[in-house]
Amino acid sequence: MDSALCIDDVRLTPILIADPPLLNTQGVHQPFTPRLVVEIVTRGGVTGLGETYGDARYLGPARALAAALPGHPVTHVNGLFALAEEVGDPAMTAGVDERADAGGLRGAQTAAKLRLSVVSAFETACLDALGKTLGLPVHALLGGKVRAEVEYSAYLFYKWGAHPGGAPDAWGEAVDPAGVVEQARRFDRLHGFGSFKLKGGVFPPEEETAAIRALAGEFPGRPLRLDPNGAWSVATSLAVARELGDVLEYLEDPATGTAAMAEVAAGTEVPLATNMCVTAFEEVPEALARGAVRIVLCDHHYWGGLHRTRELAALCRTYGIGLSMHSNTHLGISLAAMTQVAATLPRLDHACDTHYPWQTEDVVTTAPRFRSGRLAVSDAPGLGITLDRDRLADLHRRWAEDDGRMRDRDDAAAMRAAHPEWTPGRW
Amino acid sequence: MDSALCIDDVRLTPILIADPPLLNTQGVHQPFTPRLVVEIVTRGGVTGLGETYGDARYLGPARALAAALPGHPVTHVNGLFALAEEVGDPAMTAGVDERADAGGLRGAQTAAKLRLSVVSAFETACLDALGKTLGLPVHALLGGKVRAEVEYSAYLFYKWGAHPGGAPDAWGEAVDPAGVVEQARRFDRLHGFGSFKLKGGVFPPEEETAAIRALAGEFPGRPLRLDPNGAWSVATSLAVARELGDVLEYLEDPATGTAAMAEVAAGTEVPLATNMCVTAFEEVPEALARGAVRIVLCDHHYWGGLHRTRELAALCRTYGIGLSMHSNTHLGISLAAMTQVAATLPRLDHACDTHYPWQTEDVVTTAPRFRSGRLAVSDAPGLGITLDRDRLADLHRRWAEDDGRMRDRDDAAAMRAAHPEWTPGRW
Ligand SMILES: [Mg+2]
Ligand SMILES: [Mg+2]
Repeated sequence: MDSALCIDDVRLTPILIADPPLLNTQGVHQPFTPRLVVEIVTRGGVTGLGETYGDARYLGPARALAAALPGHPVTHVNGLFALAEEVGDPAMTAGVDERADAGGLRGAQTAAKLRLSVVSAFETACLDALGKTLGLPVHALLGGKVRAEVEYSAYLFYKWGAHPGGAPDAWGEAVDPAGVVEQARRFDRLHGFGSFKLKGGVFPPEEETAAIRALAGEFPGRPLRLDPNGAWSVATSLAVARELGDVLEYLEDPATGTAAMAEVAAGTEVPLATNMCVTAFEEVPEALARGAVRIVLCDHHYWGGLHRTRELAALCRTYGIGLSMHSNTHLGISLAAMTQVAATLPRLDHACDTHYPWQTEDVVTTAPRFRSGRLAVSDAPGLGITLDRDRLADLHRRWAEDDGRMRDRDDAAAMRAAHPEWTPGRW
Repeated sequence: MDSALCIDDVRLTPILIADPPLLNTQGVHQPFTPRLVVEIVTRGGVTGLGETYGDARYLGPARALAAALPGHPVTHVNGLFALAEEVGDPAMTAGVDERADAGGLRGAQTAAKLRLSVVSAFETACLDALGKTLGLPVHALLGGKVRAEVEYSAYLFYKWGAHPGGAPDAWGEAVDPAGVVEQARRFDRLHGFGSFKLKGGVFPPEEETAAIRALAGEFPGRPLRLDPNGAWSVATSLAVARELGDVLEYLEDPATGTAAMAEVAAGTEVPLATNMCVTAFEEVPEALARGAVRIVLCDHHYWGGLHRTRELAALCRTYGIGLSMHSNTHLGISLAAMTQVAATLPRLDHACDTHYPWQTEDVVTTAPRFRSGRLAVSDAPGLGITLDRDRLADLHRRWAEDDGRMRDRDDAAAMRAAHPEWTPGRW
């Protein structure tokens, strides 16, 4: 095989990107959040891009994998999993099993899941490099697109008007139904999204229920979702499901854990979705056997890349489980990857989530444009994006100069800095 | 995207290939069996190869799909399924639901499954054409190989020494334990296979049990499999499992249907494998929920191609189900496809089946060599094979000149021609 496709070098660049003060059940987004940009350079001189979590515990395994890759062909992404396991020093991920993920919003975290999040960025970068070398879009390396556009949903957040001591952002405050509706109007105006998701678990359920009601009044007939990240008891979840059953497309992770989700599911006709109780293949059988979820939110960062995302989609089709897509804070590299893989899925039942409209900084040269909430699927080689090296250097400098407080995302610490008495809401 | 990758022409060539008088529960292989060779020619002038069933009921849907393909990019194999459904005239597959497949060895047959068998050859041909165009092996288009060799199992058959009125073949007769052992020795000598599978359901179970015992005596420690294609009752299946539990790697489709298989599974520790009660994604959930099988035999002709085979493998990994590979009579095109996809599967738990050593004719120029029962995974572009056009033309002429008796494989008719009173054995 052509040695031009062998990996010559891997560059890892941890960065800090600006993030607005979005609220969730774990606290508030810090002013800056870490991401890791992976560049894979082939002997043919082509560079592929990937992006994943940038917290310290991802960097060790990423460095180990990067060091092992020179000489490996970019075509051979199936081999990345065993390689990552082989080179991963257990000490790098020690204690991960006991630890919550960034913001504790991801469900049970394990060293294996962390490794999949690392591999996902390398797989994406390999596919980008391969596509650029061959003159083919990444979707064509995954069997080809089956749709020309991918639909996204507006991701609404309760938020402060500014970070503590910071300048107000363009979005303003949203801490009540009127603020949420105003934010939704802005999303609608700027990007034309056809459906709305509200990140809940921040205020008492009756306030969040009122916000969903207000959205239903303002945007009749548009699909609505509410996601309290497992902050509710089974009884509360069922009460909210009863209250909002007529307007919800789905209720996302109302309660924590498969057992509680199954109990909620048994008591309501409202479909339950998850990106918490099912975030890895080994968690699927029990959740499905117990009827805990009717929709799984795929996320290539969680599941180990674009090929694995397609495998998850096949699993969902087989079991009659709906498919949607999850998003955490991400940049244009991941958005391109999300769009490319989403374009190939034979049945994508719901508009995908994306944080992207919340980011004011990026490392790609051209920001994608949402039209009617949709992104056109690029047919340009690879992911169809170009790295802005100056911007990457700036954001890395911010990371290098950080005193350590922002290098690990900690929404709870950020919240407690402003409100020392704060504890996560549980209802 | 490069228009050189668009399909310019599709050539379909039904052929008849020589087949030895192998016995199974449905009768005996006819002297010739139909296959369909699919050639997909790109605007860039590259030809990709695929192979599938050639019986009449596959030809109509294949012609409809072939007619719809010019202009479609060979990269876009995900789109073949919807296209095949769209162009498929229901009249072409009318009655398929009520009909048994070739030899009735495939389990429940439906128009949708037939369509998947057709699509599989087109998908393989697209991937071969794409790989040849790009200079990449097919495995690299599926995420890359994770092994350098694929292990196959010796596929033993009870057989006659010759077709009625025909000349004896090199393998001789095998109708008792001594004949089966002699056949196994020849397989071992010629190809060095490390494991053996006996196609059963031909003689009373005690005779087949004795054959397996004889193999165990001759080849101590080698994995052994027995596959009566669902010819046994639950009680018989359990008796055989008890009798052979200490030497069987797995027992394949002892009884017919998920319910009976589940009953057998509940009564024995011997793992049950299938290529009958689970041959499509929609059959997976019930079979797994009932614990009917512990091993699924994948087959890209059944499941809809190489990508779908990888999805099945992911499903099996998720549910802790073992993976093996099924084979029906096939030529070198399919053998290359089987080897390429098998090379990419992270966990392939058992040696693959192949009928290939039984074929004396092929349409590829170079016959692959088994060494210690293994085939090296080709890194040559595409499937790594070359079509022998003269041979193809000869075999097509045989098909064109056939009076219709061989164009649809019918093992029962062949058996009744020799033994008019014959009925399928059921024990
Ligand atoms: Mg969520
Ligand atoms: Mg079988």
